[in-house]
Amino acid sequence: MVKFREEIADLKPYDPGMSMEDVRREYNVQKVAGMALNENPLGCSPRAKEAMVNALDSIGDYPDGNAMKLRGVLSSKLGIGAENILPTNGLDEMIGLVAKAFVDKGDEVIVADITFPSYMSAAVAMGGKPVVVPLKDFTMDLNKVLESISEKTKVIWICNPNNPTGTIVTENELIDFLEKVPSHILVISDEAYREYVTREDYPHDTVKLLSKYENLLVMRTFSKAYGLAGIRVGYTMGDKSLLDKLNRVRETFNVNALAQAAAIAAFEDEDFLKKSYDLNLEGKNYLYGEFDKLGFYYAPSETNHIFVNVGKNGREIFEKLQEKGVIIRPMGGSFIRVSIGSMEENRLFIEKLKEVL
Amino acid sequence: MVKFREEIADLKPYDPGMSMEDVRREYNVQKVAGMALNENPLGCSPRAKEAMVNALDSIGDYPDGNAMKLRGVLSSKLGIGAENILPTNGLDEMIGLVAKAFVDKGDEVIVADITFPSYMSAAVAMGGKPVVVPLKDFTMDLNKVLESISEKTKVIWICNPNNPTGTIVTENELIDFLEKVPSHILVISDEAYREYVTREDYPHDTVKLLSKYENLLVMRTFSKAYGLAGIRVGYTMGDKSLLDKLNRVRETFNVNALAQAAAIAAFEDEDFLKKSYDLNLEGKNYLYGEFDKLGFYYAPSETNHIFVNVGKNGREIFEKLQEKGVIIRPMGGSFIRVSIGSMEENRLFIEKLKEVL
Repeated sequence: MVKFREEIADLKPYDPGMSMEDVRREYNVQKVAGMALNENPLGCSPRAKEAMVNALDSIGDYPDGNAMKLRGVLSSKLGIGAENILPTNGLDEMIGLVAKAFVDKGDEVIVADITFPSYMSAAVAMGGKPVVVPLKDFTMDLNKVLESISEKTKVIWICNPNNPTGTIVTENELIDFLEKVPSHILVISDEAYREYVTREDYPHDTVKLLSKYENLLVMRTFSKAYGLAGIRVGYTMGDKSLLDKLNRVRETFNVNALAQAAAIAAFEDEDFLKKSYDLNLEGKNYLYGEFDKLGFYYAPSETNHIFVNVGKNGREIFEKLQEKGVIIRPMGGSFIRVSIGSMEENRLFIEKLKEVL
Repeated sequence: MVKFREEIADLKPYDPGMSMEDVRREYNVQKVAGMALNENPLGCSPRAKEAMVNALDSIGDYPDGNAMKLRGVLSSKLGIGAENILPTNGLDEMIGLVAKAFVDKGDEVIVADITFPSYMSAAVAMGGKPVVVPLKDFTMDLNKVLESISEKTKVIWICNPNNPTGTIVTENELIDFLEKVPSHILVISDEAYREYVTREDYPHDTVKLLSKYENLLVMRTFSKAYGLAGIRVGYTMGDKSLLDKLNRVRETFNVNALAQAAAIAAFEDEDFLKKSYDLNLEGKNYLYGEFDKLGFYYAPSETNHIFVNVGKNGREIFEKLQEKGVIIRPMGGSFIRVSIGSMEENRLFIEKLKEVL
């Protein structure tokens, strides 16, 4: 037997659950609504599709390993140097790279207790020690994070807005926090859902913070509002010296050629982004209204998903809904997370939810 | 300053060199031949393109994180369990995963002195210690590898055929070697170029070895003969318990949806594979003939590239060729590696090579 690294002894391979196709076949249901993965019900911009089709002509060639064009487009529109941008095979890749570049055995990595789980597993894989800070009112508790900083703290993850609760840290809270965090600690703001945020006090322009806080990384993705989850592309911005370390441990051709072409086209299609935002807001308001009628508590969401207390065991509700063709995500206790879908999906979800309650 | 892991202190980000577009613009040349990255001059199978276009309809959804369909197709055609197959974002991802799952600080990783460089850098990134074994007659020297095994040896990398020299380890040599390697040492056969092999004594069916040698992993890719370098997909086969460890450290949605669809279609198009093989053989024989006329030594290639001694400084030849629109790869001393291209590219290369000599 080949001995594996002891750090990975307790890690579990990801369980994606049943696919829509599995559910359709297994339970013999006609309509299946996939509301578990916070995907865009509109798909992507038609311009992004066109860009991918055009890129097929040179699919035999390796992608640009430095993603020069994509970084150029992002750079000019975001007002930041191309050398301050690093695209990856979705943000999943970057979460692993952060640990691989910066987390030494015994280093502490601060994460919320209810947040995107890969922050923790990536740290553990490198021998890091997660320090888990409970949410307060379903929101990242930055004061508690500050209290949790020790001499061993290396990285602090802020999912903003937070997956799965949908809550935000405000701009003032973030700046106040960054002022207090020692500059040798890496702070990462994962803004995967930023395009869905409605509140004005959200830090809509964290790019401007990067020159002041050289220990800050900002992560954004094309998987959510841009609707490109299937092709895998996200990017991270920050100080050149941080990105240099991440560049050393990444794969050479990490972002495929179609993803690069699609991201450029998608980034320039603001109409599509507006449509995604509007549809999401309509769905959110509809679901809020239905949850209110049912007397359910939900965390105020600034994302494309809602963290809601259905008053019964979440896993049971999940299983019963799945048998009826609606796939959501069970959370702890009586909470579930439901992605906001098309209005048809949202209505199907409410209809089936009422049946199973 | 955020302190990075000391293991990555000497790693360098990959330098892809100038792109074909860069060269066209910089040197104002009309025809540019990219012969540096061992890409398929035919691109990919039209069936793979069609599959990618069809997959665009659900590009807003995450890819199947377990690549069930792709693994199913590979499984039935290769006669191995789907649980013995793990697709990745190109083999680059897998090279990193091997180190992340198995290489502890101080573990020794045996590699050839002239081979694919990522084997070494991936090991170094995890604190592994590369043990470098010189090629013998431009071929992996398995006897020397056996002599180099110590108590600390964890992984042995065999690139077969070897990139950049194009040489092979025969089936008998490989089996003899596997018999002698202790079973707690992981042996990896990287078969990225296997589809181009012409010799019968090559281990064409390593799948059958996997049940006997549980410490063996076999890696294959769609980037070369299948012409899908741009979309990123390769796969690794081996014992379930090995793949389980690799699964723990990989990204959840590592292989994009279009890559999965394209790989399935490409794998079933044997006509395209035959065309790639034939064109490569024609180009190889043409280049051999021209090198013979020039009196150049070349290693016998079982791949889509040739390792050739041009008798002058390889880097200078590289630079002069690039100015004339032909991009090859300089190797140590007077060696260069040239990818076998279309016949038009091969002729352009020879024409320009004669000019710069």
